[in-house]
Amino acid sequence: MAGQLPNWENIVEKLNSYVDDVRKEFEQMLGEIVEVPTISMDPSYKGEIEKGADLAVEFLKKFGFEAKKCQTPGNPVVLGSYITDPKNPTVAIYNHLDVQPAGGPEWVREPFKFTIEDGKYYGRGTTDDKGPALTALFAARFAVENGIPINIKFIWEFEEENGSPNFEYFIKNYKSDLKVNSVLVSDTLWISPQKPSIPYGLRGLQGARLVLETGTKDVHSGTTGGAARNPIGELCQLISQLYDAKTGKVKIPGFYKDVKKLTDAELKNFLASGFDVKRWIQVYGFKSIRTKNKAEILRRIWAEPTFEVHGIVGGYTGPGIKTIVPPRAEAKISMRLVPDQKPDKVFKLLKDYVKKLNPDVQVIKENSLEPYYGEFTGPYAEAAVKALEFGFGLKPAFIREGGSIGAVVTMKKHLKVPIVFIGLSLPEHGYHEPNENFDWRQASGGMKTFVKYFYDISQIK
Amino acid sequence: MAGQLPNWENIVEKLNSYVDDVRKEFEQMLGEIVEVPTISMDPSYKGEIEKGADLAVEFLKKFGFEAKKCQTPGNPVVLGSYITDPKNPTVAIYNHLDVQPAGGPEWVREPFKFTIEDGKYYGRGTTDDKGPALTALFAARFAVENGIPINIKFIWEFEEENGSPNFEYFIKNYKSDLKVNSVLVSDTLWISPQKPSIPYGLRGLQGARLVLETGTKDVHSGTTGGAARNPIGELCQLISQLYDAKTGKVKIPGFYKDVKKLTDAELKNFLASGFDVKRWIQVYGFKSIRTKNKAEILRRIWAEPTFEVHGIVGGYTGPGIKTIVPPRAEAKISMRLVPDQKPDKVFKLLKDYVKKLNPDVQVIKENSLEPYYGEFTGPYAEAAVKALEFGFGLKPAFIREGGSIGAVVTMKKHLKVPIVFIGLSLPEHGYHEPNENFDWRQASGGMKTFVKYFYDISQIK
Repeated sequence: MAGQLPNWENIVEKLNSYVDDVRKEFEQMLGEIVEVPTISMDPSYKGEIEKGADLAVEFLKKFGFEAKKCQTPGNPVVLGSYITDPKNPTVAIYNHLDVQPAGGPEWVREPFKFTIEDGKYYGRGTTDDKGPALTALFAARFAVENGIPINIKFIWEFEEENGSPNFEYFIKNYKSDLKVNSVLVSDTLWISPQKPSIPYGLRGLQGARLVLETGTKDVHSGTTGGAARNPIGELCQLISQLYDAKTGKVKIPGFYKDVKKLTDAELKNFLASGFDVKRWIQVYGFKSIRTKNKAEILRRIWAEPTFEVHGIVGGYTGPGIKTIVPPRAEAKISMRLVPDQKPDKVFKLLKDYVKKLNPDVQVIKENSLEPYYGEFTGPYAEAAVKALEFGFGLKPAFIREGGSIGAVVTMKKHLKVPIVFIGLSLPEHGYHEPNENFDWRQASGGMKTFVKYFYDISQIK
Repeated sequence: MAGQLPNWENIVEKLNSYVDDVRKEFEQMLGEIVEVPTISMDPSYKGEIEKGADLAVEFLKKFGFEAKKCQTPGNPVVLGSYITDPKNPTVAIYNHLDVQPAGGPEWVREPFKFTIEDGKYYGRGTTDDKGPALTALFAARFAVENGIPINIKFIWEFEEENGSPNFEYFIKNYKSDLKVNSVLVSDTLWISPQKPSIPYGLRGLQGARLVLETGTKDVHSGTTGGAARNPIGELCQLISQLYDAKTGKVKIPGFYKDVKKLTDAELKNFLASGFDVKRWIQVYGFKSIRTKNKAEILRRIWAEPTFEVHGIVGGYTGPGIKTIVPPRAEAKISMRLVPDQKPDKVFKLLKDYVKKLNPDVQVIKENSLEPYYGEFTGPYAEAAVKALEFGFGLKPAFIREGGSIGAVVTMKKHLKVPIVFIGLSLPEHGYHEPNENFDWRQASGGMKTFVKYFYDISQIK
């Protein structure tokens, strides 16, 4: 039956009953995996990570998938696979099953005890990213069992919350398992419950530390001040020469050269995203921001590079003031990058300019992440729009995200196929926050969305 | 015998034997007072402060002085008095008997155990300021017992190392005890063992904290960066607008208006001080300084005001970088002031300029200390030169000091008499440093110096 497409009306009918029927099973499995505290940031949870990976393999096998734990120098990646016919197209679905740490007084329930209240699923990892992962698994089982001519692979990472340090190792070492036609990533948020988001761009990052040493010990500012250099003052001066903190404009020569121009179509999509300026200010607790113009904010956070000072270390930081001249100061900075900026090139621009402005300042390279720019037109993007409209009855918006996901850039680099983001998390799900939750509306709508997506992309040549 | 001056040749003869005779007695008393840990910064040493003050009263009485502990809202001030004749001129000698904290691995001997090695006296407080205080006491006893027509008062403070918070209270409340013709302060350092220093100027200080709050919590620099304000970046920008950290030039309008011009005579004195650029850089452990020109360094540290950043607090300060936008940043700054700048006026200039540059930045006032400008010509200054030449056979230099001594400004304000500094501490005595020490050369030379000074100023009309 390879390549032969079942009738969509029949699929819809079966899908509606399937979604009704599997609710208890979904909740039972979500509860089981949420109660394994797969915290990847804390090495003491290594045993729980392995337990979570074993449970994931068990889930995949129970659903008829081949499954294995792929070892890396760090945590394993679980790889699932269901080949309906080698001639059918293959989609890889990326999720992660590790979670952020949890706890503290803001949690009104135990983070790793799964509870259901009013159709809401509470527990760390429910929305990020165990709920979406299981939603895709339920959709995949339905698809392969109901003759949708597609092969499905699952890539379930266990180090995403820790920066995916071994994901490239996995991709390189399991290349033969990863011959796919497209990738589906389900690890992003909608902009509001009424507006599904399809992100197609991510910012990159180049971090650096700027270090200046002008002495070897704290000295008295009375005895030496005037002739002694002040490393904090000089770093402040340097930073103000690197960017205008009031406007955010970066002053490093050549910095904006490779920035891909935001098209009118993209900006139109951004404005249709449901983004609300007042709510955004409130959510992040800002007292004021650089601009209140909606288009300008969206352009700045999604499509423009930045220069940011994350901290300065040096001198006296206790109560009051202590009249010293410190010997050393360090500024922690990063630049968020957008397509088509390259971290290496930007780092060189920074280093060369600092050398010119203050040659005594050392520029130490930190994390590099490439920006990502994917599909928001073409058959996969179109399929994603139709799928969300089918699954939720809501028209999605194409947006970019201001943050960075290293795994996505790695997949694009090595798999060289279209990558589409269909996220299911809502702003109120408490992504990375206390009292994380997921809900049946997103899970059931998600299952329908994914089935529709599989159905449509099975026909892309 | 009021006002009748004994023959100087006779005085010198007696003084030489006196100095030889009292060495053991001086060492015994210095040991006794050094072993009382009169640490004023640490409230848990309050009992030791009282013990030190009682011992000081005992010393004064033993030497034939009237003495009392004068209570203040903080630590007491010990006041000693010997009236040879009400018609004779009166000199007040200021010293402090409280000390800096001590301890740590750099101390090769117990800080509060007095030890003598090779004519050197080790222990916290030996040079700052118990040794010089006792030296003055031994000289005073000799002076009054040998008919030098002068009345002598001792002002021994116990809060100098804690910023003299109650010294003005003392001066105001004991004004009737403090009708004096001049003040002698012995709490400063020579510039080298071969060059006595007579400081006649001190810088003042205006401290401030610059605080900027743009949010209420750390936020993700990917999600918000570009639109979010960065309080560290803005403070850096502000600081670079307030001063040029590379040259030290302050950019606040009107800042230099009241700066007393350094005269050619003063600069000539500075250059004759024995100040050595290489040694200075080495002592303070600088890797480089703003200028290596000797005259320029001395002008900058003694006769010019400064702007200094002592620390910046805000953002992430741990290892590596953490990509946040912080909600708040605070810079701790101070301006050292020179005659005739006024702290209040300078604070207003700063505040007004910050308001213009970045109105969201709060300017919070910290410590104020007025600059001091005293005598380097006239009969008291001449007497000090002759006294040091007699006591040590070395020609002293008139210098200013870059630091601030609040008590001196207070005495000038309320007592309205000439103040002369004759310090005895050497750079190698470890002033405020581990392994503090004093030595017999400075003590015996100091006794001779003070006697000669008392002899000469007893004749100033």
